[in-house]
Amino acid sequence: MNAGRREPTVAHIAALARVSAPTVSRVINGHAGVAPDTRRRVEEVLREHGYRGPRAEPAAVVELVFHALESHWALEIIRGVEHGARTHGLAVLLTEMQGRLTPEKAWTEQILARRPTGVIAVFSELTAGQQSRLATRAIPLVVIDPTGEPLHETPSVGATNWTGGLSATRHLLALGHRRVAAVAGPGAWPCCRARLDGYRAAMDEAGVPALVREDVLYVEGGRRAAEELLALPEPPTAIVCANDLQAMGVYQAARAASVRIPEDLSVVGFDDLPFTAWAGPPLTTVRQPLARMGETAVGLIAELARGRRPAETRVELGTTLVLRESTGPCP
Amino acid sequence: MNAGRREPTVAHIAALARVSAPTVSRVINGHAGVAPDTRRRVEEVLREHGYRGPRAEPAAVVELVFHALESHWALEIIRGVEHGARTHGLAVLLTEMQGRLTPEKAWTEQILARRPTGVIAVFSELTAGQQSRLATRAIPLVVIDPTGEPLHETPSVGATNWTGGLSATRHLLALGHRRVAAVAGPGAWPCCRARLDGYRAAMDEAGVPALVREDVLYVEGGRRAAEELLALPEPPTAIVCANDLQAMGVYQAARAASVRIPEDLSVVGFDDLPFTAWAGPPLTTVRQPLARMGETAVGLIAELARGRRPAETRVELGTTLVLRESTGPCP
Repeated sequence: MNAGRREPTVAHIAALARVSAPTVSRVINGHAGVAPDTRRRVEEVLREHGYRGPRAEPAAVVELVFHALESHWALEIIRGVEHGARTHGLAVLLTEMQGRLTPEKAWTEQILARRPTGVIAVFSELTAGQQSRLATRAIPLVVIDPTGEPLHETPSVGATNWTGGLSATRHLLALGHRRVAAVAGPGAWPCCRARLDGYRAAMDEAGVPALVREDVLYVEGGRRAAEELLALPEPPTAIVCANDLQAMGVYQAARAASVRIPEDLSVVGFDDLPFTAWAGPPLTTVRQPLARMGETAVGLIAELARGRRPAETRVELGTTLVLRESTGPCP
Repeated sequence: MNAGRREPTVAHIAALARVSAPTVSRVINGHAGVAPDTRRRVEEVLREHGYRGPRAEPAAVVELVFHALESHWALEIIRGVEHGARTHGLAVLLTEMQGRLTPEKAWTEQILARRPTGVIAVFSELTAGQQSRLATRAIPLVVIDPTGEPLHETPSVGATNWTGGLSATRHLLALGHRRVAAVAGPGAWPCCRARLDGYRAAMDEAGVPALVREDVLYVEGGRRAAEELLALPEPPTAIVCANDLQAMGVYQAARAASVRIPEDLSVVGFDDLPFTAWAGPPLTTVRQPLARMGETAVGLIAELARGRRPAETRVELGTTLVLRESTGPCP
């Protein structure tokens, strides 16, 4: 089985464990029909002698890098990447940047050492130098929801954010709302900017003025913005949020101010994370196909790794408005 | 820089790209001060000639295997494992079993080929053969929330599930409830069995009869069980669930039956996933330190990989009852 210099042979192991060679093989290959005591003795000898077994080629790896693993949003993308990777015979190596948008130098060194089939960066900004180093080693990079304008023409995957913002706002306008506020995410990030622009387009179309507060894409961002908006002399009757977490913050602020949803205030989220269906009341939101975005990113990596230039380097998957119980007619 | 047989030298690349050798080095090392056009030309030549750069040792890998990536529960564990792995200089390779509790043969072959520092299986059942094959290669295995009794004395990490079930039930009894029902998870899984046993212990202590429905650990399991319980001639005034997803199902059933929480029905969950704080009303639940469970599992792997036998091979981290607004006095 193995004639290497330091690796023990099956016959050698068998002699040491006082069993037959076929018994050792059965243990090594995980077959049944070995008494527990015998199995344990053989395992011990194998361990003592550093048995590692015949060499096989491990599957190639795709690196998945997150700025933060903070919300169910991340889990949906992980699932999609994992499923897509399996289809392409790739294993998934996961790294979190602990909230940093730009990976550290040590991370780049590790990537170069591992020589992955490709790198998928989620909501991250690689420096020009980092992108270039990957490029020099022919390691393809695909970005999901880029936070800045990449130097290289990096392929990216996102959703139709502008259309999503537009359809959420049009839904509220169709319900008779006129004071419709938007809680926006950081304006420097294209995905947030596109959602806000969709909102503005719908408001302009209806000839009503926009009312915007910008805050972080977390529950506290939505709460802070809603506290401010609800304290206005003429508070909005509807709020469009940049994501579902912000919408949950709006729920908190409304609850604290005894503002009923949807009777007094309509709320729309963005993402359609699973918990939004269980919120009180269930949230009307714009669905992003996050898992499919992950799968699509792996597909791009696989194409690029085969040296093909994909037809589209900026893929935007469709968003859908999901109607639940947090939106109603203007009071 | 490299004198290998097939790898081009920097001087060779420089000549082909019509630039100086220092410029090639700058591009390879990701340094600034190279014009975009020059950079692109150098990258192209490097790619064409299959430049891979000097060899470095990639970080060792810990394999993290999930039966399913379905709930925020998984994300919390992933975060913990990722943080712990970083501390120990390990990279995390993630696999999902698509709902299967026992990994396929192909998975085992891949693990053996990758020779990881260790394997963390979450809610999974490795066959005796699979466990044995890892053992023969001296690859340590740690299980988080084992679903069966492992053949080997596999180290495992969980939470104090019995105590959690006990404290949730005692809380309801202290509020005056007597008809307290339990929605249990699959009884064959030790973590679910322990939670239910804690509930039974508290009910026995109070001298009131238990009322149990067993169902899956998903929203629909809780909904189905609650529909049945609320249709009883004498419905319960409180329900303890085996996890937070079941509790969200109880919310749905209560909403459909116009049963108010907590006025008519008190509900307690288990896990304390982030969304429970945003539910309507916010959920009283038993907190499991999921991220710390993940970190602890990596710590055990690191010890085992150094050939040490950890002092404890069954680690149970503490649970805490988190009081929110879904529990109130017995009506």
